[in-house]
Amino acid sequence: MKAAVLREAKKPMQIEDVKISKPGPHEVLIRTVAAGICHSDLHIADGLFPFPLPTVLGHESAGIVEQVGSDVRYVVPGDHVITCLSVFCGHCEHCLTGHMSRCMTDEWARGPKDEPRLSSDKGRLHQFINLSSYAEMLLVSEHNIVKIRKDMPLDKACVIGCGVMTGFGAAIHTAKVEPGSTVAVVGCGGIGLSAINGAAVAGAGRIIAIDMLGSKLNLAKEFGATDVINAKDGDVVAKVRELTGGGVHYSFEAIGMKKTAEDCFSMLRAGGVATIIGMIPIGTNIEIHGPELLQEKKMQGSMMGSNRFRVDMPRLVDFYLADRLKLDLLVSHTIKLNQINEAFDTLRKGEVARQVIKFDA
Amino acid sequence: MKAAVLREAKKPMQIEDVKISKPGPHEVLIRTVAAGICHSDLHIADGLFPFPLPTVLGHESAGIVEQVGSDVRYVVPGDHVITCLSVFCGHCEHCLTGHMSRCMTDEWARGPKDEPRLSSDKGRLHQFINLSSYAEMLLVSEHNIVKIRKDMPLDKACVIGCGVMTGFGAAIHTAKVEPGSTVAVVGCGGIGLSAINGAAVAGAGRIIAIDMLGSKLNLAKEFGATDVINAKDGDVVAKVRELTGGGVHYSFEAIGMKKTAEDCFSMLRAGGVATIIGMIPIGTNIEIHGPELLQEKKMQGSMMGSNRFRVDMPRLVDFYLADRLKLDLLVSHTIKLNQINEAFDTLRKGEVARQVIKFDA
Repeated sequence: MKAAVLREAKKPMQIEDVKISKPGPHEVLIRTVAAGICHSDLHIADGLFPFPLPTVLGHESAGIVEQVGSDVRYVVPGDHVITCLSVFCGHCEHCLTGHMSRCMTDEWARGPKDEPRLSSDKGRLHQFINLSSYAEMLLVSEHNIVKIRKDMPLDKACVIGCGVMTGFGAAIHTAKVEPGSTVAVVGCGGIGLSAINGAAVAGAGRIIAIDMLGSKLNLAKEFGATDVINAKDGDVVAKVRELTGGGVHYSFEAIGMKKTAEDCFSMLRAGGVATIIGMIPIGTNIEIHGPELLQEKKMQGSMMGSNRFRVDMPRLVDFYLADRLKLDLLVSHTIKLNQINEAFDTLRKGEVARQVIKFDA
Repeated sequence: MKAAVLREAKKPMQIEDVKISKPGPHEVLIRTVAAGICHSDLHIADGLFPFPLPTVLGHESAGIVEQVGSDVRYVVPGDHVITCLSVFCGHCEHCLTGHMSRCMTDEWARGPKDEPRLSSDKGRLHQFINLSSYAEMLLVSEHNIVKIRKDMPLDKACVIGCGVMTGFGAAIHTAKVEPGSTVAVVGCGGIGLSAINGAAVAGAGRIIAIDMLGSKLNLAKEFGATDVINAKDGDVVAKVRELTGGGVHYSFEAIGMKKTAEDCFSMLRAGGVATIIGMIPIGTNIEIHGPELLQEKKMQGSMMGSNRFRVDMPRLVDFYLADRLKLDLLVSHTIKLNQINEAFDTLRKGEVARQVIKFDA
């Protein structure tokens, strides 16, 4: 099969012939139909996060089951699936209490011990976070996929696997936004827009979108934002307080920066909760002013939107088909696998919402 | 009536003859039966927190209703009451959603406009946070008191009004400790011991008490601690992780220090919640390591234990009378009003749990 191989950070990926293994007892072979291009892939390609090379990037995909391992009961060939970032074990404290996005057991992630899942004639290729979606086939654990209805377009379904689930879930699961409440979302990329979408579906009364790009703020309105603030226009916290008469019930940080995370805490009303979705860099501390805790403010992190994958992803699919989840607005471009390096260049410029690779059938 | 008047910080209080006003329409005159001596009073007496002087300190009291204003319907003369720190308004967003400890409306706190509630022949005395308990009589808003059953000893009931409610409520209301879960409490003064007591009543599986004084750790066991750690013996966070196989579900900070608040976050397992009860000084920031938020850890503040005063205080009284709330262990000394300066000296040394002034009948 063909796959985009990254052999060296900061160098273009090459489309190569790659060998994929056969499914072990609990594994599933999937024909990739579509894969989203996410900032996390870019961070690896640009050498900002460490990951062993060579690898095949991509972690946001959807496809059709081709072959299943001997012990797989969840899917059969022909089933449509979305891939997940997390391989839940199904029997730890987190999984058993409905928090599988917190599962840290890695027993299902390893795959067969003797044979690499991916290789080329130059040797082993490291599978990227148990997925490697920039390839015509995927070999993954059965705990890595969610089965969805077949009338769902897979080139839209793929983005549910990472950014959409993360942002939407942060609003409806981690923060549990209440109908009628006030919400602020800082950062209107794919994750922030999905958080706005989630807050709107959950019935928020007022949703304030905050970004530095007017184009993203305009897009935010289509996702459900009732108010927008351009962060270039001055003190965001003061503006949020003014708009809401003292602060919001829920704030969301969807960038991953110290300053915006701290702003999210400061813009809360008494009893409010700031949910940090963005990946704060290792070594960065978020500082919160101690006495403000007396107002019963909270700060919490969200991991993959606190989702229960097999329960929640089919619901997101239903929301899309009912025109409540705005994936058509989110997916800005559809490209071919051999355009991947240009797509990464576009992402570096930061103006697009989401690009999706559509594989040839 | 007699009252202990503080005319100058860092100087002894004087027992003086003090004039108390008549109840306005929504006010209640109470004969003070008992009043606890709390660190917050000490902080004012020592000039650490600003408060206008002269004043009569004391904010943790219980007594018997003597006279009620024309519009008061909640109590009649002869009723037994505990005083609250907070004057809830009853009609703001916080009050109407069961969070009256967050109420910031002050309309009930002001009292009659023309006349000071307290005065002496030298002029006006400032009432201390709408209470001033170190006096034979109290004149307060009807939203400042909770009626309790008459078989409850008032010299035990008084401490429910501040420290007990704050610590116990942080465990059962703010954090909502689950049966079988693991808990750590940092700081075993009156508030920390009450948090331990609350966690025990809520059915926690394991409660780890942490302090630097062996005597307090021994006392903590009587309140329900299953394990104790003396913070002098090294890395508290590492010890908590070792005892619990990776961290606790709930941690409580009951001192008010940056380091211990940060420790409370670090000692959480994935998905755990740190509740800060202690008063962190103005200007002090709590730093939390950003990437740990990805484990869905939370930090939150608790204000007066998130209590709904009129609902929760009678429940605490019932817990005491059922021997589940350990007030007898908490109240270490009973003194007379004229011993108040010695009692403050004892508190400065820090070894006692709670001293209570019992007024002459």
